[in-house]
Amino acid sequence: MTAALDSTTTRRTVDLGPAVELVSKEEGHRQPLAPEFVSAEDFSPLEVAYDFGRVRREDIEAGPRNIWRYKRLLPVPSNVEEIPNTEPGCTRLVKADRLAKALGVKSLWVKDDTGNPTHSFKDRVVAVALAAAREFGFDTLACPSTGNLANAVAAAAARAGWQSVVLIPSSLERAKVLTTAVYDGNLIAVDGNYDDVNRLATELAAEHENWAFVNVNVRPYYSEGSKTLAYEVAEQLGWRIPEQIVVPIASGSQLTKVDKGFREFAKLGLVEDTPYKVFGAQAAGCSPVSTAFRNGYDVVQPVKPDTIARSLAIGNPADGPYVLDTVRRTGGAIEDVTDEEVVEGIRLLARTEGIFTETAGGVTVATAKKLIEAGKIDPDAETVLLITGDGLKTLDAIENEVGPKATVPPSAAAVHNALGL
Amino acid sequence: MTAALDSTTTRRTVDLGPAVELVSKEEGHRQPLAPEFVSAEDFSPLEVAYDFGRVRREDIEAGPRNIWRYKRLLPVPSNVEEIPNTEPGCTRLVKADRLAKALGVKSLWVKDDTGNPTHSFKDRVVAVALAAAREFGFDTLACPSTGNLANAVAAAAARAGWQSVVLIPSSLERAKVLTTAVYDGNLIAVDGNYDDVNRLATELAAEHENWAFVNVNVRPYYSEGSKTLAYEVAEQLGWRIPEQIVVPIASGSQLTKVDKGFREFAKLGLVEDTPYKVFGAQAAGCSPVSTAFRNGYDVVQPVKPDTIARSLAIGNPADGPYVLDTVRRTGGAIEDVTDEEVVEGIRLLARTEGIFTETAGGVTVATAKKLIEAGKIDPDAETVLLITGDGLKTLDAIENEVGPKATVPPSAAAVHNALGL
Repeated sequence: MTAALDSTTTRRTVDLGPAVELVSKEEGHRQPLAPEFVSAEDFSPLEVAYDFGRVRREDIEAGPRNIWRYKRLLPVPSNVEEIPNTEPGCTRLVKADRLAKALGVKSLWVKDDTGNPTHSFKDRVVAVALAAAREFGFDTLACPSTGNLANAVAAAAARAGWQSVVLIPSSLERAKVLTTAVYDGNLIAVDGNYDDVNRLATELAAEHENWAFVNVNVRPYYSEGSKTLAYEVAEQLGWRIPEQIVVPIASGSQLTKVDKGFREFAKLGLVEDTPYKVFGAQAAGCSPVSTAFRNGYDVVQPVKPDTIARSLAIGNPADGPYVLDTVRRTGGAIEDVTDEEVVEGIRLLARTEGIFTETAGGVTVATAKKLIEAGKIDPDAETVLLITGDGLKTLDAIENEVGPKATVPPSAAAVHNALGL
Repeated sequence: MTAALDSTTTRRTVDLGPAVELVSKEEGHRQPLAPEFVSAEDFSPLEVAYDFGRVRREDIEAGPRNIWRYKRLLPVPSNVEEIPNTEPGCTRLVKADRLAKALGVKSLWVKDDTGNPTHSFKDRVVAVALAAAREFGFDTLACPSTGNLANAVAAAAARAGWQSVVLIPSSLERAKVLTTAVYDGNLIAVDGNYDDVNRLATELAAEHENWAFVNVNVRPYYSEGSKTLAYEVAEQLGWRIPEQIVVPIASGSQLTKVDKGFREFAKLGLVEDTPYKVFGAQAAGCSPVSTAFRNGYDVVQPVKPDTIARSLAIGNPADGPYVLDTVRRTGGAIEDVTDEEVVEGIRLLARTEGIFTETAGGVTVATAKKLIEAGKIDPDAETVLLITGDGLKTLDAIENEVGPKATVPPSAAAVHNALGL
């Protein structure tokens, strides 16, 4: 219904760069570019199809130091870099030698996406959603969220001069409320859990043809933003694909798009078409995809999440089956880790590399550790870990775990004593 | 005493790139490079002197996407980019058209230093301090701090595999303790105020010849890191100096180094030697430099700080007199703003540009507003605002100011009602 309504009202010439149409993931039904997210033919998710033409390394290298350097590979207008947006991307790829040593592997990199404008990878997907939504004639950016996405949507709308409507559960922690509310959009607390908020968002998206819910009606464009993680990793490695990459799984979209990004780069001849393995990371308290992988299933059984890794706590991940396909096709694996291991993962990354990640990053590090110990990640092959969010946003996870070594009176002797000197 | 001790123990060949000696700021006494910070001749601060040779734009542009692209202009070894460090810098310079409109100026840029590894400009100075300290043979990175510096030192030491000793007042807020403790260095809480902690640091620096207190015994190197803010602004503007820049004042070091950075670039022919004005920003609750400027004094009368802008709350700013010199020489001005204006500054930047800054950034924005209204900042000339830290670290400042527009039951009608639709 949403789809039909939007398609009628926005049927006009849009410039979404190389994007040419939408294709249903299951049966490949094609339809014109529109703010629709599910195929009316086979009810599967719609995905953007492209006509890339020729894309050269020099074109990318001459672009801005943000995700718009990859605009020839994204569903965004050709002048996208001139339009106010948050300009995320080009975050650090850190050679993590001390973490590598701690984990017993030879070559390890950390893609540190905490450097984005609101300190998570969500800035990437939201920036693409905003750029596409503008072309479709929307003027309000919206989402249901419990954290990182709320921050990213409210900030991007503020920067663009758009209205925003961000729906959160009213039980959300005060800190996450503040970090969204400060951008002065329409932040609405909803008495209900995240599922209630999500349902409400779908209802509102159908009613308001000028509201772009980034993860609902413009989701096919939004999700393409995650490809930039793969593009950047490959470019930062000197135009090559790493042998192994570990990606956290929430809806599963990011993992499939990272894979898509590598394949596009290889197909376009931007990198050599070398084999790579994609590994998935989940928290044990919300591990439907990991469980399906372990049991050899093609479908994912929904679960009720119970984990401190709340940004990954999607019990019914929409892209779960596609994650299973990707991981199996590339020869990777999926694992899950306990909340205790998540906290140890956060602390391990912090003490070895000086990078403080949120719980989702702890999941990635701890899962990598587990996969290495199980011999599934090859310690002699190069590995990249995607660290997608910031520890400042999930301080509660370490609250009872870390603190000062000692509290002392203001004297050198007391300090020496505390340090055992 | 510290100076004499360290100079004896570290007299060996050090590679600090273009740095050739230390010079006292008052009378220009010269001495060899060493971990010393005050001249034994005239008791004034020591500053690094260089022999730059020829530095070309191409050399810089070919460098890494972090502050080490400017290694030919910093007191760091020539292979600095190969040594583990936090690699800060190359943060966004954002064209702030919506903020410009709100402030009534024509052309405005925001240098958003929240994108650094621990989300403040302190990563720049600490990275330079670490690189220089390594050359002098130190193996422990240390500081007294109440926030951003503690984060930066603990993270950099972790990344480098060094010990760290970070001294904080025991009354520090839990969040700031956590964001330092997570890096697993030697975090010591001291029963006393920041002055007590600072004195203790000076005492410990004299006793431990392997402890580099970044803002004490290696301060001349540390403070040079702030020049990179000016270098980046000039390079990001397309190799030119902006006409006006607004810089927050804590010790005052950053403001003088930004000026130094522009002058070096001009002298080396990297940019045209165009005139520019440097403006200083303080909080009214800690405005010793602003007060001295207003009264036409050359010296700065210490004050007891009382402001929410705690990262700027240095009542006796070491570089105050040099700030006055710089601002007067360039034709700028210094102003201070109330805590209410600081909060409004934070909110204004967030709602116009989607950038959430800490209280220090609120001081900068609010001071710029005041200087524009007073006609001291020319609305027709281009202006850059330095936003040096992240709002996630000072959530208490906005805690009672922002929140959801409404809390509603999970129904579309309730949302419409809340939004007046």
